[in-house]
Amino acid sequence: MNHLVIMAGGVGSRFWPMSTPAKPKQFIDVLGTGRTLLQLTVERFAGICPIENVWVVTSVKYKELVKEQLPEIPESNILLEPCMRNTAPCIAYVAWKIKQKDADANLVISPSDHLVMDVPEFRRVVCKGLEFVAGSDRILTLGVLPVRPETGYGYIKAQAGGDGDILEVESFKEKPDIQTAKYYLTAGGYYWNAGIFLWNVQTIEKAFRDNEPGIAAIFDSLQSVFYTVEEQRAIDRKFPECPNISIDYAVMERAENIYVFPVSFGWSDLGTWGSLYEQVVKDLDSNAVVGQNVRMVESKGCIVHVPDDKKMVLQGLEEYIVAEENGVLLVCRKTDEQRIKEFSSKL
Amino acid sequence: MNHLVIMAGGVGSRFWPMSTPAKPKQFIDVLGTGRTLLQLTVERFAGICPIENVWVVTSVKYKELVKEQLPEIPESNILLEPCMRNTAPCIAYVAWKIKQKDADANLVISPSDHLVMDVPEFRRVVCKGLEFVAGSDRILTLGVLPVRPETGYGYIKAQAGGDGDILEVESFKEKPDIQTAKYYLTAGGYYWNAGIFLWNVQTIEKAFRDNEPGIAAIFDSLQSVFYTVEEQRAIDRKFPECPNISIDYAVMERAENIYVFPVSFGWSDLGTWGSLYEQVVKDLDSNAVVGQNVRMVESKGCIVHVPDDKKMVLQGLEEYIVAEENGVLLVCRKTDEQRIKEFSSKL
Repeated sequence: MNHLVIMAGGVGSRFWPMSTPAKPKQFIDVLGTGRTLLQLTVERFAGICPIENVWVVTSVKYKELVKEQLPEIPESNILLEPCMRNTAPCIAYVAWKIKQKDADANLVISPSDHLVMDVPEFRRVVCKGLEFVAGSDRILTLGVLPVRPETGYGYIKAQAGGDGDILEVESFKEKPDIQTAKYYLTAGGYYWNAGIFLWNVQTIEKAFRDNEPGIAAIFDSLQSVFYTVEEQRAIDRKFPECPNISIDYAVMERAENIYVFPVSFGWSDLGTWGSLYEQVVKDLDSNAVVGQNVRMVESKGCIVHVPDDKKMVLQGLEEYIVAEENGVLLVCRKTDEQRIKEFSSKL
Repeated sequence: MNHLVIMAGGVGSRFWPMSTPAKPKQFIDVLGTGRTLLQLTVERFAGICPIENVWVVTSVKYKELVKEQLPEIPESNILLEPCMRNTAPCIAYVAWKIKQKDADANLVISPSDHLVMDVPEFRRVVCKGLEFVAGSDRILTLGVLPVRPETGYGYIKAQAGGDGDILEVESFKEKPDIQTAKYYLTAGGYYWNAGIFLWNVQTIEKAFRDNEPGIAAIFDSLQSVFYTVEEQRAIDRKFPECPNISIDYAVMERAENIYVFPVSFGWSDLGTWGSLYEQVVKDLDSNAVVGQNVRMVESKGCIVHVPDDKKMVLQGLEEYIVAEENGVLLVCRKTDEQRIKEFSSKL
């Protein structure tokens, strides 16, 4: 059976005050479409697997937000982390749990806060990828064909000489500097790491046993409590013992049999205001405005994200970010967006 | 007896969204002192007359705001205009009413939304002015010694050759252009019209009979209802018949026996964001901020007025106005403040 695992525990601190620890980016309608990023993510996978095979792993503090935004998902499929331990422990938890009932499950692991423009193409890719990993020990990543020398993403380098749609991975690359990013773009064979992984649950288990036996041992020890009333209490006790480590670092950069599927479906991790700006419809003055009651006067190149009932007139602003949530307003220059964490710390 | 009449019916549209028709400038703590301009005005006159001789004339829609902000004033001293007719009908109403019980009253007429920095000097001037008009037919205006070539105020020209503190008025001057304002400043003998008038109630009555007999007739016809339960209904019916005319135009520019008292007590009409900016304490980057939870980062020369519980970080703004009230935010360039009415109309 196919299963979808959505990781929805991030805190989105770069989008303060739109995104806050109390309600991070994935729970927000950042694009002004009427759907939150989490809801868009689930919709994107419609038809890939039955709803009872959709899993959301999140922080215990976001349980109610997930229930509210995804009422169609069984509450027992919402797995709650008592603390943040990055993606590896999160994936191990859900994999160990699924495996217990479905020993031959194929899993798609997906972030909850990215954007895909061409959803039919996305579904085609995911279906094909699931066939590729089913009954095999291959790990498949989706690698987005780069369209600019982006320094904000990690890259996946494919081995030369592959044929067919899916290529073997040579190595994973950290976020490059601009020179390197330009080289990747012109050299070819480098792809943006979209953070989407497809693999059989047995492959996942083996990858953890080989590379992170400590994590494997923790979830082995929890086998008897899965699907019981004891589960949450046991997780709350044992999960914090996991190391804080990403799936990329724990598995991808070490395991063998890793493949990349070069794809092109209009993807963005929406990781910066700049990338959000790119994805929102602009007015004639190049302002990207999310918010029904915002009037731009002689303002250009701004990105504005405020609640629909928030009334504002913004005059004479060029290249600014204006964001409000819960009565907290930020105005800052777009070029200073990497300092937003510093700004938020001032309040 | 001395009486104080505070005119508090203005709508303050130039300070949107801080000031709105629902709660104009005089009812707002624009300086961040914890007191509204109306409260500061009443305090400024403390000791000039007993509290039962303090009158507030305002619009019927501001009755509750006045009661709330000035609980010490007898409710029957709050006179309510059913519609806006500028200052002349407002002054006639209160003068006719006071005269009926105190035929020899001396009145100080004052706006409710101006600023005076040197309150002891202000009181000295007002006391002396009241002595000057008591039992006489003289009309006294306060004329502020100009300290810059201001084009936003009307001017009073004194006759040459006066001795003593108080001078005869030669003429009233409309708001000048900058050349003329510079001339006034260097020539001397020109004073800013602060809109404060002192006169005996009989002088007021005569001035209306001579110059605006229509207004005099309207309030003559209402004599029998003053201080009765019928008063408000009668005012609601007859007041709208008054012409829409200022006291300057109706009386000051026509009457004789007008004097000016040149004064210097740190006055501002707070008529523009620029004048408000001048009066508020600035930080090291020349930002004038009213609001307890505003953080300025690399911003300069801004004026910010937001509620104390409003949290904001403003980064990289230079020479902007940032104002919020009732969830409505304005950001605009200081140099465009004369267009605020246009901006407000966009929502």
